Amino acid sequence: MVTLNDIAARLGISKSTVSKGLNNASDVSVELRRRILETAAEMGYAGQRAPKKFCIFIENMDYKDPNQFGYDIIAGFREMAGSDGWMVDVSPLDEAYQRTTTYQEAMAQGGWTGAFLLGFSLLDPWMEELHTARIPTVLYDNYIKENPFMASISCDSGGGLEAAVRYLRSLGHRRIALLSGPLDSYVIRERYNAYCAALEKCGLPVDQELIGLGYYVAETTRKFLPEFIGKGATAILCSDDGRAVSVYTECCDRRLSIPQDVSIIGFDDLPMAAYMNPPLTTIRQDRLALGKCGYYALSCLINDLAIDSIRLRAPLVVRGSAGPAPQRAGLGQAGEEET
Amino acid sequence: MVTLNDIAARLGISKSTVSKGLNNASDVSVELRRRILETAAEMGYAGQRAPKKFCIFIENMDYKDPNQFGYDIIAGFREMAGSDGWMVDVSPLDEAYQRTTTYQEAMAQGGWTGAFLLGFSLLDPWMEELHTARIPTVLYDNYIKENPFMASISCDSGGGLEAAVRYLRSLGHRRIALLSGPLDSYVIRERYNAYCAALEKCGLPVDQELIGLGYYVAETTRKFLPEFIGKGATAILCSDDGRAVSVYTECCDRRLSIPQDVSIIGFDDLPMAAYMNPPLTTIRQDRLALGKCGYYALSCLINDLAIDSIRLRAPLVVRGSAGPAPQRAGLGQAGEEET
Repeated sequence: MVTLNDIAARLGISKSTVSKGLNNASDVSVELRRRILETAAEMGYAGQRAPKKFCIFIENMDYKDPNQFGYDIIAGFREMAGSDGWMVDVSPLDEAYQRTTTYQEAMAQGGWTGAFLLGFSLLDPWMEELHTARIPTVLYDNYIKENPFMASISCDSGGGLEAAVRYLRSLGHRRIALLSGPLDSYVIRERYNAYCAALEKCGLPVDQELIGLGYYVAETTRKFLPEFIGKGATAILCSDDGRAVSVYTECCDRRLSIPQDVSIIGFDDLPMAAYMNPPLTTIRQDRLALGKCGYYALSCLINDLAIDSIRLRAPLVVRGSAGPAPQRAGLGQAGEEET
Repeated sequence: MVTLNDIAARLGISKSTVSKGLNNASDVSVELRRRILETAAEMGYAGQRAPKKFCIFIENMDYKDPNQFGYDIIAGFREMAGSDGWMVDVSPLDEAYQRTTTYQEAMAQGGWTGAFLLGFSLLDPWMEELHTARIPTVLYDNYIKENPFMASISCDSGGGLEAAVRYLRSLGHRRIALLSGPLDSYVIRERYNAYCAALEKCGLPVDQELIGLGYYVAETTRKFLPEFIGKGATAILCSDDGRAVSVYTECCDRRLSIPQDVSIIGFDDLPMAAYMNPPLTTIRQDRLALGKCGYYALSCLINDLAIDSIRLRAPLVVRGSAGPAPQRAGLGQAGEEET
């Protein structure tokens, strides 16, 4: 175990100066503090003074309200960690912070033994560092190959989307669109591929005209919904429930009835989904369970049990927003015959 | 919770007769016992009299000696389960037993709350029943879609085989053979596919002449080893360490040196691997960790936390059995040029 004395000896400074540097005291210069943090990270110092402290880093994900995706993940993690005597800090962060502070520096500074990373995209600056970092780390919906200090937690998007497509197919739908975020995240790519694979398994062609991707939810929906309908789509799979909400709004504006004119299926099953009108049929991610498994994976890693990944079921929750495919006479694109 | 009284009421017999039937007492007729077991299974009776008892069913896998694959899996499971107060029975079984007793009947009879299934092939009679059984069940190296009562435990064969192929490629090998069991098990199919995918990622063609599959280890090795060498193979990946042992024996008989004439990589890292001559380079499955995760997954399932799968890392353990590719002048099949 690396101690403050080891770092002090390496740098030729006092132990108290090392401590001040790690704790961001104002009487240590920016340059010296940086050297202390870098040396601590390089030597593998992991904040032994507070050995029972984890951090949840959260990026691109809301979590302060029970209807926001991160809320229950954090609650599940905290519940399990707390009963084992771990403190859990939650640290929201952005790309700018990641560019000025490396992951190892941040961990050394916080005195955390391990971390749970939520909402990171493939473009986040820390992602590169995770391939070599030697800090027990669990990622939600991201996967780092070959580094045994990293583990992944996710839901089975493939199974969930296949169930959704089969369900729509059984209701007579053949033109099933995908409305999704952009492909700069690991999980959105996975869901995109799963959507294509599910269509093929059900004998339906993948049609690029029925795929709409974009970062800004309302704008993306406004652009693609009329295009999808014009191309004969009778059902829309959304990559998250938030997008499904925006589709409801847009359908209302365009006087399209759900599910009579178009069927909608979401992804996540946020608490609000059951209260939408009509109640949203969606693919469930059990976020409390994700948080609990996140803690379990992290506790495995710090005990040298090299978990690669834990995956949860993603069952289809059938409510009222998907129904039989409408017969749309006169829409050229929808004119395929049932086989 | 279904009780003995419920079963007794349904059948119109006494509670003590139900109890006798479930416990295989000799004063209950075979026909009545069968009706009691079937009714108990149908009603979801799970042996509430001994609620803290799990079963490990084991098939096609040796486990009595530390050098046998199942030994540490059972030890890891027992260690974790025992500390939570669970008793663990180990029940070896065969296809004949599965044909006369359904899984639900066996579970009701044993009074087990859940089970961990080791070594099952796709041909095992119980596999079909697992798609609908409502009994918390964890399978090692098998995967049941959509049934939330089932979870899977495995090692990342794909990652391990990719690391092995990349390592051989870096040593100059281009003709890498696969010696494996038959494709009637989920995991052997997975490894077969992973081998093909790894070759492709390394820019090497998949050559059916370099793939040898067979149930009987020594016979399969004796048949395929000379064929592989004749076709220019300079390295052989084995689907388990037992096959690697048989390759060592066969190489010895044929005066082939390992790794000078042919490189060998195993799969499993059984304790003996380090003591072979030369020590076996192999892909590690951490069996204690597999057992521990098996218990964790089962305890999640009985707490309604629908784990789909837990996967462990499968790192390449480099020892002495793989070395630089030999230059084999005169072997037509090996005459490809390095690119």
